[in-house]
Amino acid sequence: MSLEFLVPGLGEAESEKIIGIMQECLSHEQETALVLKHAHWNVAGPNFIAIHEMIDPQVDDVLNMADESAERIVQLGGTALGRPDDITRFRTWPKFALEGRASTLDYLRALDEYYDVLITDERNAIKQLDDLDFVSSNIIQDHVQNLEKFQWFMRSHLICD
Amino acid sequence: MSLEFLVPGLGEAESEKIIGIMQECLSHEQETALVLKHAHWNVAGPNFIAIHEMIDPQVDDVLNMADESAERIVQLGGTALGRPDDITRFRTWPKFALEGRASTLDYLRALDEYYDVLITDERNAIKQLDDLDFVSSNIIQDHVQNLEKFQWFMRSHLICD
Amino acid sequence: MSLEFLVPGLGEAESEKIIGIMQECLSHEQETALVLKHAHWNVAGPNFIAIHEMIDPQVDDVLNMADESAERIVQLGGTALGRPDDITRFRTWPKFALEGRASTLDYLRALDEYYDVLITDERNAIKQLDDLDFVSSNIIQDHVQNLEKFQWFMRSHLICD
Amino acid sequence: MSLEFLVPGLGEAESEKIIGIMQECLSHEQETALVLKHAHWNVAGPNFIAIHEMIDPQVDDVLNMADESAERIVQLGGTALGRPDDITRFRTWPKFALEGRASTLDYLRALDEYYDVLITDERNAIKQLDDLDFVSSNIIQDHVQNLEKFQWFMRSHLICD
Amino acid sequence: MSLEFLVPGLGEAESEKIIGIMQECLSHEQETALVLKHAHWNVAGPNFIAIHEMIDPQVDDVLNMADESAERIVQLGGTALGRPDDITRFRTWPKFALEGRASTLDYLRALDEYYDVLITDERNAIKQLDDLDFVSSNIIQDHVQNLEKFQWFMRSHLICD
Amino acid sequence: MSLEFLVPGLGEAESEKIIGIMQECLSHEQETALVLKHAHWNVAGPNFIAIHEMIDPQVDDVLNMADESAERIVQLGGTALGRPDDITRFRTWPKFALEGRASTLDYLRALDEYYDVLITDERNAIKQLDDLDFVSSNIIQDHVQNLEKFQWFMRSHLICD
Amino acid sequence: MSLEFLVPGLGEAESEKIIGIMQECLSHEQETALVLKHAHWNVAGPNFIAIHEMIDPQVDDVLNMADESAERIVQLGGTALGRPDDITRFRTWPKFALEGRASTLDYLRALDEYYDVLITDERNAIKQLDDLDFVSSNIIQDHVQNLEKFQWFMRSHLICD
Amino acid sequence: MSLEFLVPGLGEAESEKIIGIMQECLSHEQETALVLKHAHWNVAGPNFIAIHEMIDPQVDDVLNMADESAERIVQLGGTALGRPDDITRFRTWPKFALEGRASTLDYLRALDEYYDVLITDERNAIKQLDDLDFVSSNIIQDHVQNLEKFQWFMRSHLICD
Amino acid sequence: MSLEFLVPGLGEAESEKIIGIMQECLSHEQETALVLKHAHWNVAGPNFIAIHEMIDPQVDDVLNMADESAERIVQLGGTALGRPDDITRFRTWPKFALEGRASTLDYLRALDEYYDVLITDERNAIKQLDDLDFVSSNIIQDHVQNLEKFQWFMRSHLICD
Amino acid sequence: MSLEFLVPGLGEAESEKIIGIMQECLSHEQETALVLKHAHWNVAGPNFIAIHEMIDPQVDDVLNMADESAERIVQLGGTALGRPDDITRFRTWPKFALEGRASTLDYLRALDEYYDVLITDERNAIKQLDDLDFVSSNIIQDHVQNLEKFQWFMRSHLICD
Amino acid sequence: MSLEFLVPGLGEAESEKIIGIMQECLSHEQETALVLKHAHWNVAGPNFIAIHEMIDPQVDDVLNMADESAERIVQLGGTALGRPDDITRFRTWPKFALEGRASTLDYLRALDEYYDVLITDERNAIKQLDDLDFVSSNIIQDHVQNLEKFQWFMRSHLICD
Amino acid sequence: MSLEFLVPGLGEAESEKIIGIMQECLSHEQETALVLKHAHWNVAGPNFIAIHEMIDPQVDDVLNMADESAERIVQLGGTALGRPDDITRFRTWPKFALEGRASTLDYLRALDEYYDVLITDERNAIKQLDDLDFVSSNIIQDHVQNLEKFQWFMRSHLICD
Repeated sequence: MSLEFLVPGLGEAESEKIIGIMQECLSHEQETALVLKHAHWNVAGPNFIAIHEMIDPQVDDVLNMADESAERIVQLGGTALGRPDDITRFRTWPKFALEGRASTLDYLRALDEYYDVLITDERNAIKQLDDLDFVSSNIIQDHVQNLEKFQWFMRSHLICD
Repeated sequence: MSLEFLVPGLGEAESEKIIGIMQECLSHEQETALVLKHAHWNVAGPNFIAIHEMIDPQVDDVLNMADESAERIVQLGGTALGRPDDITRFRTWPKFALEGRASTLDYLRALDEYYDVLITDERNAIKQLDDLDFVSSNIIQDHVQNLEKFQWFMRSHLICD
Repeated sequence: MSLEFLVPGLGEAESEKIIGIMQECLSHEQETALVLKHAHWNVAGPNFIAIHEMIDPQVDDVLNMADESAERIVQLGGTALGRPDDITRFRTWPKFALEGRASTLDYLRALDEYYDVLITDERNAIKQLDDLDFVSSNIIQDHVQNLEKFQWFMRSHLICD
Repeated sequence: MSLEFLVPGLGEAESEKIIGIMQECLSHEQETALVLKHAHWNVAGPNFIAIHEMIDPQVDDVLNMADESAERIVQLGGTALGRPDDITRFRTWPKFALEGRASTLDYLRALDEYYDVLITDERNAIKQLDDLDFVSSNIIQDHVQNLEKFQWFMRSHLICD
Repeated sequence: MSLEFLVPGLGEAESEKIIGIMQECLSHEQETALVLKHAHWNVAGPNFIAIHEMIDPQVDDVLNMADESAERIVQLGGTALGRPDDITRFRTWPKFALEGRASTLDYLRALDEYYDVLITDERNAIKQLDDLDFVSSNIIQDHVQNLEKFQWFMRSHLICD
Repeated sequence: MSLEFLVPGLGEAESEKIIGIMQECLSHEQETALVLKHAHWNVAGPNFIAIHEMIDPQVDDVLNMADESAERIVQLGGTALGRPDDITRFRTWPKFALEGRASTLDYLRALDEYYDVLITDERNAIKQLDDLDFVSSNIIQDHVQNLEKFQWFMRSHLICD
Repeated sequence: MSLEFLVPGLGEAESEKIIGIMQECLSHEQETALVLKHAHWNVAGPNFIAIHEMIDPQVDDVLNMADESAERIVQLGGTALGRPDDITRFRTWPKFALEGRASTLDYLRALDEYYDVLITDERNAIKQLDDLDFVSSNIIQDHVQNLEKFQWFMRSHLICD
Repeated sequence: MSLEFLVPGLGEAESEKIIGIMQECLSHEQETALVLKHAHWNVAGPNFIAIHEMIDPQVDDVLNMADESAERIVQLGGTALGRPDDITRFRTWPKFALEGRASTLDYLRALDEYYDVLITDERNAIKQLDDLDFVSSNIIQDHVQNLEKFQWFMRSHLICD
Repeated sequence: MSLEFLVPGLGEAESEKIIGIMQECLSHEQETALVLKHAHWNVAGPNFIAIHEMIDPQVDDVLNMADESAERIVQLGGTALGRPDDITRFRTWPKFALEGRASTLDYLRALDEYYDVLITDERNAIKQLDDLDFVSSNIIQDHVQNLEKFQWFMRSHLICD
Repeated sequence: MSLEFLVPGLGEAESEKIIGIMQECLSHEQETALVLKHAHWNVAGPNFIAIHEMIDPQVDDVLNMADESAERIVQLGGTALGRPDDITRFRTWPKFALEGRASTLDYLRALDEYYDVLITDERNAIKQLDDLDFVSSNIIQDHVQNLEKFQWFMRSHLICD
Repeated sequence: MSLEFLVPGLGEAESEKIIGIMQECLSHEQETALVLKHAHWNVAGPNFIAIHEMIDPQVDDVLNMADESAERIVQLGGTALGRPDDITRFRTWPKFALEGRASTLDYLRALDEYYDVLITDERNAIKQLDDLDFVSSNIIQDHVQNLEKFQWFMRSHLICD
Repeated sequence: MSLEFLVPGLGEAESEKIIGIMQECLSHEQETALVLKHAHWNVAGPNFIAIHEMIDPQVDDVLNMADESAERIVQLGGTALGRPDDITRFRTWPKFALEGRASTLDYLRALDEYYDVLITDERNAIKQLDDLDFVSSNIIQDHVQNLEKFQWFMRSHLICD
């Protein structure tokens, strides 16, 4: 940690805690962007074009989330670890298992489950951050609001058929 | 492989070869985007803002390259594998080792070496693709042209100091 | 009615008739905008995203129609009544009954029926307006042209399945 | 309620409570948009154009607020009820009584009173939501910030004359 | 008249009639643009900025109207006469008399009267054109719709004070 | 014909008549777009660049006209036939005979004659549509207004030399 | 003159002189805009489209010049007189005599002569303004620079043919 | 052929060969644009809006391809033949047979077959052009890259259902 | 204080407290904008252009912050005091002492210290505001998030050299 | 002063004189921007919205003026002093005394007086600069032209009421 | 040559050869941009405006070509020599001899001859580059495609007159 | 010289003098654009990217300056000579000698010296033009203002290191 980067009003110990929480969010968000692209490329079936195009703006949103999480980490004096091996090292959640050409509904179902874990983890992160740093908490709150909206998009395809 | 996706005029065996070459390019390009962001976040020193901002448009370019490589794979009947574990599985090149807050010149030197391997690999891919499929070859030729320009940007910081 | 607002060349009695016709169009169009949003929010099923996004530009169009109808009323010296109770007071057509999460096809079917009445009513309005005021008639003619195009969009989903 | 839409980390009972609070905000905001347009059309007097044009961007803002409230409801598994009869059914606040061509100051005074109730109700909603769901609370907090700014605009016309 | 410019399906005699009617509209509209600018520069008083800015988009609209009228004339084989002396030569309506710095309400009252004549004249022109050429009639119908809307803007300032 | 597509308020027999008229407009407009491009490519001479560039926006306009005509046909329950053989099948007007590199004036003269027939035919179509469907009539009226403006552009080059 | 509008640092007598000079520029520039449009509509011949389109941006420029001249007059306490009769009243220069459909070169020649007088007059105005008010002088200097550029455009068509 | 248009470095005989190959590409591409619009208008079924909108950007792309092919022909001294009868005269491939309102999948299947021939033909054209003119070859290579991407879009709807 | 401006739901005493806190933020933010411009103009050295340009977007951000703080004050019934003497009157923090042409690093170091106090003060303001008014607290929370990001930018230049 | 920054062709002594004059302009313009915002926030009364919005573009203009003045100072080798204490130190003109919520006319009257001194001072500065450096003189001439235009806007509200 | 700039996969000797070829292209392209501007300024005659404006976009294209050629040289480790004396030193082609005001056709004829040499030289360069470096070859291939299109534009003015 | 191009109010002898002065400015400005690009390509060192990008907008500015100078020459009846040999023929100032890859500071120092001569020469030109033609003088005054600003940018990098 770089002590000269301590945010005015935040101590060293609590900064380290925040960094730890934020690193996990960062890796999770980076993987989410990769997984969404993975689905974007391999979906197929009668709804192909609608789902293919629905995913891309969400990829942009999630890449921005990762950028915000990472920049908060370095603002607090930490290192933002963002290589593929960093993602697998910090992973505490199940991998995304589906691969190969599959129907849009199969991919949406798999992504829906993946988002269940992602949102639950980030909601837990917020609870811990609330007592540590309102700036970091606000950042992740905005991420959750956006992620829950996209999960609604996906779920709306999975009923009424 | 999905046989119903064979491009008109390309056979099954050669399509599989092209897919194999393109998958390696895809994984390499995806890792490059992650590595560039990793550098973007952790560089520091008197030239911080110039280098920090010089990297972002290149990230966008490399993400588009990965998208083109992946979409070519599925057009040929293959599966584009794009999760973090896919990147590490297909990796035949050295990892990006530098981490933690370091000076702009240190990061540029490490990225320059990383690009040496990336460009050499993609130039080799082109040689193989030239006999198999001009569309895939054209795609990677454009990638190399862009990557060599950015490498020149980086190298220009590393002399005359 | 404000007599000083009489359009040059139009008498008081005919202005009142026009205002009466236009007020019904206004209330009908305002309700249509609310109903379309209602559908936009509650549709579900495998075609969710395509239908969800197809509705929004039509909402904007219909809000502009209501604005044009209302501004014509006040140009003629009348009052444009636009609160929710005004809508229900002037309603001479059947309510939109479907509610709750339902499939895209169910909502499209219900909207198709709702548009049957709306277009029939506005076509009747045009016939009456033709003898009274060509400006008002032209306004509603443009509305019908646009509404019939959107009805075609909806109907095209309801066959061939 | 659709149980398969439960947000990860929120139970069924609390989701129903949130939906109830949000539905009231939704109906209130939908009526506000209609009431602002109603005023936009019928104001008159020497300051006509300035007030006429000041209202329209606020209509757009309030329509977006209603959209956000409604989309949150369906994300939580509820149904967003948005037809005119839904507005009057959920109404617990006084109607907007002013109608007919009236001066800009009369309309601003009536709108100012209408906003008094709207803001008080949404501030109460926030207090209840704070213990239930930070995402919903954040949404309404942003709405109140915007509504209070517009009320200041209106009030600034009502003194010093 | 240039006979080689006769519109297919329109005879020489009726084309001359249409040109005569359109030339009067052209001169009237050109003068209107000059008169609006004249007011734009010389208004004063507490509502100065709102009225000053309300006029400019109408000037642009009226200049476009004159352009459409003139281009229709030459499409029909006539000459569009557009110099200041042409305006005064074809003038059959009262001049705009108000000059010098005056209050916004004085200018609006004078413009309102000027528009009474303008709209009445163009409504008469439409009646004559309806039997001669629907394209020319549609052009002037659109002009009237726009002029009536702006007259309503002006009139709304002249009551309730 | 698809009976479930009947526009509310229009019967089956009259719909068929409208469709027949509109199909001819469609084929004529599609050919016009092809012919304009044909001229765009092969003109030559000292005015080359001005004429070459003047044609392209008209091509876009005519393609939009064909789109509107075709969409009206399917809104009425018909099939819009748009392949090259459909164009030649429905052709009741003379072909465009000029080919090979020729001067700008030669091409403009040939296009001027081609437009004579096109405009005459669409003016006849309007007369028939006026008693059948005001929406279709309004659509073709707008087309004629635009086509006559472009014919004026062309004719203006053909005199005074 | 409105004494309360005297620009700080400029006396009443010199302000009146400046206003007189600027009024003549205003009328001259307003007529120029009308004359350019007059030419824009009536030119014909093989270069039609190029000349027709070359004039329009200059009309916009000249309308802006008139606007700047007029606003300077009222800033100095004067009245900007802008109706057609004001133009003919203040006219000290020859009218634009050419009318009817004529070739592009004829119109350019006539406009070139018209600009000779216009530029000479505005250059004289600058000489007088230099000793009175640098702001007004700067305004007209910019006008002359633009007018001379457009005159060069016109002249370049009149040689080498 | 116009000999004065020979590209520097290309002889007359080879230019004629290239022109012959490019004319066939031109006619094929022009027909493709017509066929895509034909499908755009007549598709129906639950995926209507997604397929309807997916086709339009491809129409624009194909129209640009035809433009590039035609402009290359005239650059080489040939005539670009672009009327409907030219398309049918140069046609060596099967017509597009499907007509009438049909489901999205039926149209996609028919278009997929049509693209099989189109892509095969253009890939053959490239082989011949490679020895004649790299510029023409590069143009068609870009066309094939784009056409194969759109075929993948279509094919992705035809499996997994 | 203007009692008629009390926000619905906030009492007079607490409004005064909030206004006091917000006025200090306002003055601090206004000075910050002046100080950043002061640095923007006087920095020098080999990194001149990068630092010179990095500051300007932050100036815009801070001017918007001051605007939001001031508008909140008047929404609460207070007066927003914004002249230079108001800034020095409310100043409880050390002045910015560096002046004259100095190196980029000297200016960044001085600005970094200045931001230490600014961020600490605004973090304290938030703690007080949390119990008084969530709208005001949210406003300052957004300011702090932005200020901390810019401080990180500056600090990143001050290590590794 | 930094001698190495002397503009080619300007001596040291005259550069110092220019810098002294420009510094006063800079401080005066910076205060003007603060004062305009101060008014923007605290005006009230029936014309509130028109005046509130009229001020903001002028603030942007004045901030740009200050930027130009300051950059000219450093181009000449001087230091641009821009903190609040610099403004009060260089102030030779009366403070802006009005504070608290007041009517639009009161604020406009106070600003009108403030502009009287500002314009007089800058006109004096131009007289001195004319003999020293045409670049600096041109810069301030442009500022005065813009300031006088805005003063006319303000004054136009203060008569005819 | 800077050895540390060798592109990965290219040796020193071949890099020097490529640099030599590219330098000649660079000088030729730089001169072309100057020559085109020279013509842009001095053309005259009845087609003045069309030719004057046709040249400017080509100037921008050619400046971009020179930029690409130069950046490729430095990427390969060479120096891009771009001063006027460098152009004349590397010149192996005939100068552009036409000067003074001349007709549009004279200038187009002279430019057409100049392009004959330019295109022949770059086509020769491509043949040499094909065996050395596909990136450099692709760059010049794109240049030739664009230059041949512009030559067609010019030639199309030189026949049919 | 073309006498028919004499600007109204300027004699033949003085026009020739102005043309001589402006031609030297033109050649000097054209060389400056080439020299700036030359530097843009060959700079290197730790500040590479910032300096590389700082130069490009100045190139655009200087190209526009040359365009204005050249267009003024032809407006006055002269010929604008713009080929590389014209630049070297009219050169009365020292060449730009630095070549090869060199550090950013070396290039900035060489450019700073080059600008010393350029600005001194253009300041002298203004003195001569002031007595001949205010339009030409204003054009070069604007050029100097811009060139001095860019020289300040360069100089700011050369101190404090």
